[in-house]
Amino acid sequence: MRFKFSIVALLLEVIIIVLFGIFVKYEDGDHSQILYPIFQDVHVMIFVGFGFLMTFLKKYGFSSVGISMLIAAFGLQWGTLMQGFWHMQGGKIHVNSKSIINSDFSTATALISFGAVLGKTSPLQMLILTILEITIFACNEHLVTEVFQATDVGASMTIHAFGAYFGLAVTLVLYRPGLKKKHQNEESTYQSDISAMIGTLFLWLFWPSFNSAIASGSVFYIKAIVNTYYSLAACTVVTFAFSSLLDQRGKFSMVLIQNATLAGGVAVGTCADLSIHPFAAMCIGSIAGIISVFGFHFLTPLLASKLNIHDTRGVHNLHGLPGILGGIAGIVVTTINEENSQGIPFTPGMQAAALGSTIGIALAGGAVTGGILKLPFLGQISDQNCFDDSVFWEVPEEKKPHEIHSNNYDEHSRFEAIM
Amino acid sequence: MRFKFSIVALLLEVIIIVLFGIFVKYEDGDHSQILYPIFQDVHVMIFVGFGFLMTFLKKYGFSSVGISMLIAAFGLQWGTLMQGFWHMQGGKIHVNSKSIINSDFSTATALISFGAVLGKTSPLQMLILTILEITIFACNEHLVTEVFQATDVGASMTIHAFGAYFGLAVTLVLYRPGLKKKHQNEESTYQSDISAMIGTLFLWLFWPSFNSAIASGSVFYIKAIVNTYYSLAACTVVTFAFSSLLDQRGKFSMVLIQNATLAGGVAVGTCADLSIHPFAAMCIGSIAGIISVFGFHFLTPLLASKLNIHDTRGVHNLHGLPGILGGIAGIVVTTINEENSQGIPFTPGMQAAALGSTIGIALAGGAVTGGILKLPFLGQISDQNCFDDSVFWEVPEEKKPHEIHSNNYDEHSRFEAIM
Amino acid sequence: MRFKFSIVALLLEVIIIVLFGIFVKYEDGDHSQILYPIFQDVHVMIFVGFGFLMTFLKKYGFSSVGISMLIAAFGLQWGTLMQGFWHMQGGKIHVNSKSIINSDFSTATALISFGAVLGKTSPLQMLILTILEITIFACNEHLVTEVFQATDVGASMTIHAFGAYFGLAVTLVLYRPGLKKKHQNEESTYQSDISAMIGTLFLWLFWPSFNSAIASGSVFYIKAIVNTYYSLAACTVVTFAFSSLLDQRGKFSMVLIQNATLAGGVAVGTCADLSIHPFAAMCIGSIAGIISVFGFHFLTPLLASKLNIHDTRGVHNLHGLPGILGGIAGIVVTTINEENSQGIPFTPGMQAAALGSTIGIALAGGAVTGGILKLPFLGQISDQNCFDDSVFWEVPEEKKPHEIHSNNYDEHSRFEAIM
Repeated sequence: MRFKFSIVALLLEVIIIVLFGIFVKYEDGDHSQILYPIFQDVHVMIFVGFGFLMTFLKKYGFSSVGISMLIAAFGLQWGTLMQGFWHMQGGKIHVNSKSIINSDFSTATALISFGAVLGKTSPLQMLILTILEITIFACNEHLVTEVFQATDVGASMTIHAFGAYFGLAVTLVLYRPGLKKKHQNEESTYQSDISAMIGTLFLWLFWPSFNSAIASGSVFYIKAIVNTYYSLAACTVVTFAFSSLLDQRGKFSMVLIQNATLAGGVAVGTCADLSIHPFAAMCIGSIAGIISVFGFHFLTPLLASKLNIHDTRGVHNLHGLPGILGGIAGIVVTTINEENSQGIPFTPGMQAAALGSTIGIALAGGAVTGGILKLPFLGQISDQNCFDDSVFWEVPEEKKPHEIHSNNYDEHSRFEAIM
Repeated sequence: MRFKFSIVALLLEVIIIVLFGIFVKYEDGDHSQILYPIFQDVHVMIFVGFGFLMTFLKKYGFSSVGISMLIAAFGLQWGTLMQGFWHMQGGKIHVNSKSIINSDFSTATALISFGAVLGKTSPLQMLILTILEITIFACNEHLVTEVFQATDVGASMTIHAFGAYFGLAVTLVLYRPGLKKKHQNEESTYQSDISAMIGTLFLWLFWPSFNSAIASGSVFYIKAIVNTYYSLAACTVVTFAFSSLLDQRGKFSMVLIQNATLAGGVAVGTCADLSIHPFAAMCIGSIAGIISVFGFHFLTPLLASKLNIHDTRGVHNLHGLPGILGGIAGIVVTTINEENSQGIPFTPGMQAAALGSTIGIALAGGAVTGGILKLPFLGQISDQNCFDDSVFWEVPEEKKPHEIHSNNYDEHSRFEAIM
Repeated sequence: MRFKFSIVALLLEVIIIVLFGIFVKYEDGDHSQILYPIFQDVHVMIFVGFGFLMTFLKKYGFSSVGISMLIAAFGLQWGTLMQGFWHMQGGKIHVNSKSIINSDFSTATALISFGAVLGKTSPLQMLILTILEITIFACNEHLVTEVFQATDVGASMTIHAFGAYFGLAVTLVLYRPGLKKKHQNEESTYQSDISAMIGTLFLWLFWPSFNSAIASGSVFYIKAIVNTYYSLAACTVVTFAFSSLLDQRGKFSMVLIQNATLAGGVAVGTCADLSIHPFAAMCIGSIAGIISVFGFHFLTPLLASKLNIHDTRGVHNLHGLPGILGGIAGIVVTTINEENSQGIPFTPGMQAAALGSTIGIALAGGAVTGGILKLPFLGQISDQNCFDDSVFWEVPEEKKPHEIHSNNYDEHSRFEAIM
């Protein structure tokens, strides 16, 4: 890993800097200062929210928060270019408050897919995944918003469903029969569950900004904020209720509170800025919570055992199903209401096309990406090294003195295993 | 607990959604985009601040951060309705940037009271408490601001003193003689004390937004920000000084740094937007810090041993006494200065009436609520199960192999104890 | 410590309040509401960012987060006065949104220096350091911006380089030969490294606000935001690459990810608001990352062993060297471009003078401060008590029963050691 990762990362960074030198310039006269606080909310979600949400694994906290940071820092540069190429003016990509929000958004797809393969890939594989996924995402986003002219303000389809199904396809292709039996490291500790709540809460809090960020160009989209606020609140109460209901002893499950409480933000995304009425937003949020809880309880184990799809963080339940729900809500709302953007009406047909194309492109793109990640050059960690930071990180010793010797031996053999 | 909690929570959520459908609509032409960043600061305080502040207990972190989230998510919906009923226009409750700040505010009362009973109540009891407290809060707030026309911009009285004395009355009624001797779980660990500082710091940081949020309708209230900023800074220095001074060996106490440093924000609340001069704000903050430190040191043990008021998080010292100090400061300032709101002068008499009514209504409301929470239907956890997440949460095993069997047995008997 | 710290802290607070009463007044007609969200971002960096970044030490988390809070709360009051004395109007210091940003900024210098002496000083010493450093900082800042009329919008020189070299001079003067061999407490744990990432991420996220805060008076400085955003992103990728490259087994090092990823924000500071083009910002960020990684790997051990400069947190690599790089970038940019502020051009000569004076004044000021901190009155903790919270804090017991007795004995003797 030593040279491969470093050389690939540096090479990519040099290429990106050169491309920035050729194509990128500041937006002249950008006064969209109203967007900057919203950008910062999204920025917290990307770096703190996603990073800490994944720290629930007991021995994978360094990677969760560290590799998330790498993916996001790398991805936002790549995203600037990929999204920018679709919107060039005079051969230049103009960066401003709005474009950096979109750059952050593009990294969310890779971070969602990271959740599906969490613990089973190397940093080098994640760099490659980030490049491929953001490239395909930018194309699909162009298709959805420019060709189909569909609405998806909170990106239920283009980010959440896309990232989830892309990641599920990758994890299917990378399937490891050796992990059929649950890995001993694939569990949380008391402290790691509390760390993960830092991620959950910052995602939960700032989701109204996420769903209103693209809408708020020059007008302030209070509807997107209000709808998301109440959708998440209803979703949270319903999640607590069903979490207790599905447990034999009526106990709450941390994995559900960490994840399913957020499904309301995902599901209300597509029609967040439409006049759907707050109570409809709350219904969408409640249904999302129920779907997400049932997904974690029944579907995730089923996918793993029957379809060989091992989804570490359960992104299908937080981003996949609620993303589809969001897409369907968009179809329903555009059927009932006449909603439009600058005079161009949204149609249920185009909304359905957007949803279908997103899932199709995500699955196909993920499958191809998974195949590329299997290339021998990229290396694969062994099954027993999965979910373990010490393969890629210097980890402080917390062993008792008599255990240190054998541990060093383990590390040595681990390192050979990945070479 | 399994069915009771779930059914009550779902029933309440359905009722709320129906009420939203009937009464709530978007505010037309809401352009108060200046309020949105301030709303987000308050939002962080409610969800991250209060949640993490309470994680100091060694075995109660899941409940601290999780049940806080439940209370806040549920309470903000209920608060929208309760506050909205007092301000309906054309039979409708209009939601906008300002109303969602107020909804968040209303949940703060329940979160403060949660601190007083922390570790001794069930999630179902907390749902009931939240409904009752927010309902009574909305009435008292109407009394203070509309009937008495008193000023309380940072809600020293209507939120902090109210929440504290409500919670103290509840904990008195729910008094458990079996906890007279300190429970072995009612203490912190090194790590839980650091987690709690996440809560403290985010509360401390964003308090200027809390105290200026209601003021900032269309004008930007720099006075409320500056006064709170310097009050908290002075309070923090004084808290460190007295924390060391009161310890035999001159050591700082984490419980004081986590809590008393915030008293300056509470106490300056009532007159935060008045022209009191920064140095007066700093005096208020310093006095608040001293009162809070002495409260933790001398009063909390006394209340527990003499008056049977067991205040787990010491909310009396952070919200109760500093809230009263804020109310008194309001009386003093309106006596000295002629301050007014839109031409209507604030009078010391009305300020005093506001303070008195708030404490009276909080104590009475809390006592009644405590009585209701004692109803056998709601269940009571046993004394030995207090301050322990594993009663209501699936908690990761961190025991050594030979202890697992006996632990399972314990959990089983614990579960029977609450049935 | 008991009385000394408390009396000095209270005395200083009283003096500050009196000075506020005499000199400070609200800014009339301050409508710079655009600055408030940016202030809050900076505020998070100061209190959460710096505080948690230093929690990496396994037994020094209370001090890291607690004493940082004390330094910042005390320092922002002192900074208001010291900076204000240079800008009085009618004999008064006017406080507004911009001045509280500057007050927060001034504390950053003391927090950076705290990193250099982390674990080796007492709270009383840190109070004295804060007073002296902020006083000297305000003078140097005046020299740089008013006398030399140099540009340093993100304070690469006046805050970062200044704070680092000030701290290095202090730690040199306070050199402890007894710590030549690495202290057993001077290391991290798995959990403390994750806590430190909370600090890193909040610093990383909000750095665009830090670098644009002073610029954004009435105009919105998108350039400062964009340049910082891309500089940090490039720096992060490069840091990961070199972290792996320099490790024998290709593993990432947490200390580098926690620190060197931020160097891009420091280095781009001086010319953040100039038209340097995003790709140049990325080059500056990349070079900063490389310098910082090499500094941690080679320079920090060398400084400690050869020059008796023991820099606990490695502030030289995060703030010192990247700060100098920022100063040099400023010289280069003002040589190439004609940049000016309100018609007055920036000149490379003045930029060089600013850089030189900053480092000179920091080193001299730090040396004098170190000498003062050695005064017997202020006390010194013994070498074996370094990096240990329990000297100044009540720390929860986490020992097994049979160890408690001997531990109490240790604490007793420790206490005697500092008397």
